[in-house]
Amino acid sequence: MRVGIVGATGYGGAELLRILHSHPNFEIVAIYTSSQQGRNIHYHYPHLTGIIPSTLEEIDPIKMAKNTDVVFLAVPTGVASQLAPELLSAGCVVIDLTGDFRLKNTEDYEYWYKRKAAPREWIEKAVYSLPELNKASIKGSKLISNPGCYPTATLLGLAPLVKAKILKEGSVIIDAKSGVSGAGQTVSLGNIYSELNENLKIYKVNQHQHIPEIEQMLQELGYDSPITFQTHLVPMTRGIMSTIYGTVEGSMSEDELWKLYNDFYVDKPFVRVRDIGIFPSTKEVAASNFCDIGISFDDRTGRITIVSVIDNLMKGAAGQAVQNANLLFGFEETAGLNFSPVYP
Amino acid sequence: MRVGIVGATGYGGAELLRILHSHPNFEIVAIYTSSQQGRNIHYHYPHLTGIIPSTLEEIDPIKMAKNTDVVFLAVPTGVASQLAPELLSAGCVVIDLTGDFRLKNTEDYEYWYKRKAAPREWIEKAVYSLPELNKASIKGSKLISNPGCYPTATLLGLAPLVKAKILKEGSVIIDAKSGVSGAGQTVSLGNIYSELNENLKIYKVNQHQHIPEIEQMLQELGYDSPITFQTHLVPMTRGIMSTIYGTVEGSMSEDELWKLYNDFYVDKPFVRVRDIGIFPSTKEVAASNFCDIGISFDDRTGRITIVSVIDNLMKGAAGQAVQNANLLFGFEETAGLNFSPVYP
Amino acid sequence: MRVGIVGATGYGGAELLRILHSHPNFEIVAIYTSSQQGRNIHYHYPHLTGIIPSTLEEIDPIKMAKNTDVVFLAVPTGVASQLAPELLSAGCVVIDLTGDFRLKNTEDYEYWYKRKAAPREWIEKAVYSLPELNKASIKGSKLISNPGCYPTATLLGLAPLVKAKILKEGSVIIDAKSGVSGAGQTVSLGNIYSELNENLKIYKVNQHQHIPEIEQMLQELGYDSPITFQTHLVPMTRGIMSTIYGTVEGSMSEDELWKLYNDFYVDKPFVRVRDIGIFPSTKEVAASNFCDIGISFDDRTGRITIVSVIDNLMKGAAGQAVQNANLLFGFEETAGLNFSPVYP
Amino acid sequence: MRVGIVGATGYGGAELLRILHSHPNFEIVAIYTSSQQGRNIHYHYPHLTGIIPSTLEEIDPIKMAKNTDVVFLAVPTGVASQLAPELLSAGCVVIDLTGDFRLKNTEDYEYWYKRKAAPREWIEKAVYSLPELNKASIKGSKLISNPGCYPTATLLGLAPLVKAKILKEGSVIIDAKSGVSGAGQTVSLGNIYSELNENLKIYKVNQHQHIPEIEQMLQELGYDSPITFQTHLVPMTRGIMSTIYGTVEGSMSEDELWKLYNDFYVDKPFVRVRDIGIFPSTKEVAASNFCDIGISFDDRTGRITIVSVIDNLMKGAAGQAVQNANLLFGFEETAGLNFSPVYP
Repeated sequence: MRVGIVGATGYGGAELLRILHSHPNFEIVAIYTSSQQGRNIHYHYPHLTGIIPSTLEEIDPIKMAKNTDVVFLAVPTGVASQLAPELLSAGCVVIDLTGDFRLKNTEDYEYWYKRKAAPREWIEKAVYSLPELNKASIKGSKLISNPGCYPTATLLGLAPLVKAKILKEGSVIIDAKSGVSGAGQTVSLGNIYSELNENLKIYKVNQHQHIPEIEQMLQELGYDSPITFQTHLVPMTRGIMSTIYGTVEGSMSEDELWKLYNDFYVDKPFVRVRDIGIFPSTKEVAASNFCDIGISFDDRTGRITIVSVIDNLMKGAAGQAVQNANLLFGFEETAGLNFSPVYP
Repeated sequence: MRVGIVGATGYGGAELLRILHSHPNFEIVAIYTSSQQGRNIHYHYPHLTGIIPSTLEEIDPIKMAKNTDVVFLAVPTGVASQLAPELLSAGCVVIDLTGDFRLKNTEDYEYWYKRKAAPREWIEKAVYSLPELNKASIKGSKLISNPGCYPTATLLGLAPLVKAKILKEGSVIIDAKSGVSGAGQTVSLGNIYSELNENLKIYKVNQHQHIPEIEQMLQELGYDSPITFQTHLVPMTRGIMSTIYGTVEGSMSEDELWKLYNDFYVDKPFVRVRDIGIFPSTKEVAASNFCDIGISFDDRTGRITIVSVIDNLMKGAAGQAVQNANLLFGFEETAGLNFSPVYP
Repeated sequence: MRVGIVGATGYGGAELLRILHSHPNFEIVAIYTSSQQGRNIHYHYPHLTGIIPSTLEEIDPIKMAKNTDVVFLAVPTGVASQLAPELLSAGCVVIDLTGDFRLKNTEDYEYWYKRKAAPREWIEKAVYSLPELNKASIKGSKLISNPGCYPTATLLGLAPLVKAKILKEGSVIIDAKSGVSGAGQTVSLGNIYSELNENLKIYKVNQHQHIPEIEQMLQELGYDSPITFQTHLVPMTRGIMSTIYGTVEGSMSEDELWKLYNDFYVDKPFVRVRDIGIFPSTKEVAASNFCDIGISFDDRTGRITIVSVIDNLMKGAAGQAVQNANLLFGFEETAGLNFSPVYP
Repeated sequence: MRVGIVGATGYGGAELLRILHSHPNFEIVAIYTSSQQGRNIHYHYPHLTGIIPSTLEEIDPIKMAKNTDVVFLAVPTGVASQLAPELLSAGCVVIDLTGDFRLKNTEDYEYWYKRKAAPREWIEKAVYSLPELNKASIKGSKLISNPGCYPTATLLGLAPLVKAKILKEGSVIIDAKSGVSGAGQTVSLGNIYSELNENLKIYKVNQHQHIPEIEQMLQELGYDSPITFQTHLVPMTRGIMSTIYGTVEGSMSEDELWKLYNDFYVDKPFVRVRDIGIFPSTKEVAASNFCDIGISFDDRTGRITIVSVIDNLMKGAAGQAVQNANLLFGFEETAGLNFSPVYP
């Protein structure tokens, strides 16, 4: 299949190039950009020297529809809401990595993103696809909305509990932590090395735009209350950890808890449920598409603590987008993604 | 005043040397060690070359009582429970930085620390001193038990709410994160650079020995339920952040919340309550004795989120120990401690 | 081809597992260890959970000869000098990642390594293979000695100049810098996070055991003088940079210099010579088998500065070992290794 | 003495605030800025909350001359060349931390800095003061030019050899490495966290503007050849290491070498010459005004390797500026600077 990538100069785009370069079923035929046309990609990303020879091309929906079987949008949020409709109208199949088509409710989008929402007709056609939770719905879609990084880690951590209806309404708190690459190549004082190194920050307190995305999916799974969700910036490049707290209706042994998770994810190749007493660290999934989950129950408080880790650029962005592309075109779900994490 | 330090080859001890070297009222007269007697301290800590000329001395309680006015114990947990009684019996005044005299209930100690507790008689005489919460009690004490790093950040974050009785029982969850120096100079696979760099870990899930210390003090302040308290290791050397979640009885504006905190800490020189909407990061207190606190209330969930940051080796260990020594001997509370954080 | 790995619990071994897991021509049939037999590899390396299911096996040369086509030795230096002869005598084909068979002169080995050398007969049979410099010699060998990390970066940086005989004898100085993973999982005070983070160290001044290895190969290439070679530890996990200084006989334009390097490496898939004025950074080769080289000539001083970077665990260890295995068995030189660096 | 600081929102300025806040002889009376007038300094630097209450003031030479005894310029290079003359004409005493008055030859400045030089008359009046090398010259000066960070580490490392005339002309190579804070708060793609973390870069190859500054002073000390000087960016916030290579005329024992350095620096409070075989790391001087030096001689090559480390923001900028101010006003050279490095 012929792949086009828009916005390959961001980190999500760079990761798409890394994966798709070695993918058995996809071939990168073009990289599109709004600003550096005519330059070789290795001018921006020297690590791709000699690997991906492409020259950056101008965005041209008609040409793109003709030359590609699928287009990945790894552009800034707010750009996709305009660009995707143009591409779709021209006949492209689009996998969108931004937040622009994730929220079904446009008022929610405008409240949390502080931007104008995408056209309602296209939002309705978009399929939000976190494959472990809604694989079936993807077939035949022309516009796939790829989940956010925090929602991916958080929802995979919560889904078995929510589906099993064992969480008390109103009890869920998520303390999420991310490496810095989540901010992409944003050039701002807050993103420079000396400000972030040897530093731990909380940000967007009660205001992160991933809150409505998580709540939308939780509602679908059967949990209706608002969540408390805080995000922290950790001095490392990659990795997300969601530490998830919830109170159980009644009691539950850790063995039962483990069985619940294990049954839920038994045939999901990218989710690894850890043994009781073992908790994953972010490095154990680095540069891979895995989501690793550790579980615990505390008798003293009746509270469950779930730890869910992913690589934010992989399962949290480019890896999951390729997983969605695999499913969309009927390839093995793991095609091009079944490599080991990089450790250490 | 003449100061002796036992265990100066750990990081807490190194920090004591740094502070006391510039303190206007204390003079380091001797550094004691169980293993490197006769060596100059700069053999172990080259950064002290030419600053602190001391040769490490053998531990000898009688001599120590004669030559010092106060002895700081910066030894591993479990060592102080035996050493402190010997020093006290010989007539020393002791400020203990370990966990050995913090818990009044010896069964709690033995359950959480998995070690034999200190003699009950000395535990009863020990004064647990987190100066912002119980400054009065310290006068005349011979054995001061210096609080743990996590409890310091957490209790300073929670105290105003608990004293004001506005938290729902059972609602408190603390998600704590620490830099690596909290593990001291422990030589273990889990502590080596390549395992921790670019990595975020959760550890001691539901089992951290600081849980009973926090609960003991919360109970004193008026909150009786068990807490959920999880700890994470962040790839940085210094710094602790406690992100604290609790549900309010009724509602509360952020202005009221801010006033509550500000009034509580108005005359406490080392606690800085940030303006509404501003949250501290760990680097903003690095190498200083400050505890910075940010506050928020979320209407959607009725939940308060408090962020409390300290430098784990300073306000979380050596700095607070010197603050306690200042109070014990009637010096200015800030003597030798009123310097700026190191930034960046 | 069936592969056995001895010492997979070190970082070089872990990297072999990562590469060989996705290699089209090799299959990992067993992992051998001297200490954790019977345990699953994911007990030691959780990141391999669900990827490499192997249980660690005891070292047994006879069995190993029967069950494998090639054995990689990723053991500590000093272990291979004893183990390799046993394996070879039993009929194994061995690729040794240690320094034990690199130096032809056993006195040099004993002087620089401060250990007893391997048996002279096996040293003579061993083929030292840095494929870009001596690809031809490898065919039919039973014992391949894989080059060290620093020598790989340094020799690839120097070879074109030396072969072209344009360096003044006695003028070569190499200032080398390495990430911390070069020290492997060594559990020592000097290797813990808080000692290395935010720190830059020089070590083994004038005494690094890679000096005779570099000089041995330089001599073969036509440069006879001793070199100055200093090594530094940089607070990062992966990556080596050799900054190489030398004086040119006569003058030389940067264009001529570039042509020299480009011609030398034109058909070498893993060496990327950068354009004039562009210099590689270590991250641009991270987790890949590339060696990237930047060149410069300074009119003011008549001195050349060459910058050569590799990933120490890949081109500096496991990647190069697999490259050697590919060549030994007649596969594509790049088989299983033609993936993109991981960036950022 | 009343101190004014211009440009306190950069890292050099922040460090001046940290030092001067605790200085026994200086008092910060005003902080000047070109862009954030009327804002409290803690708006930009929250770590100063409650410590330095100043509101940023407009730059007004007449007022500044009246209200201050000395003004520190911690502004970007190129700003001081215009601002200093205005301040001096108004009657201020100026200590300039930029490069604008360091080079006596304006053509050199314009070639290396690619900017217009400061007025020649003021350059002539400016005193370049690296106190360990030219303490005498400072008295009575109205304009002190504070040395650059790299030149400080490098010149202190080289001076004893050069003064003793034991280096071969043309043999000096300096491989310098710096933490990222040297770039200040520059907001650029090259300075963001994800680009620098886990990365080692060489930059400004053969083109660093500190080359002529080092050569100018070497010439004064008695070494006339051009130097090779390369600079690298290390993933840490603070610290500079210059690894200095040179060839000795004749031979020399390490004992003689050590005696040479020790005699040279015996009465210099901020230079610590390490014992033979011991080399300093950057962290051992962190946040302090020390320059630590390690020395070695290699019989095999006849080459000396000197290692010189400083904290780039302290001895490489603000610390040295305060040391110069102490000397200028006749205070103890170490006043306000005799604190311990922060370790770890």
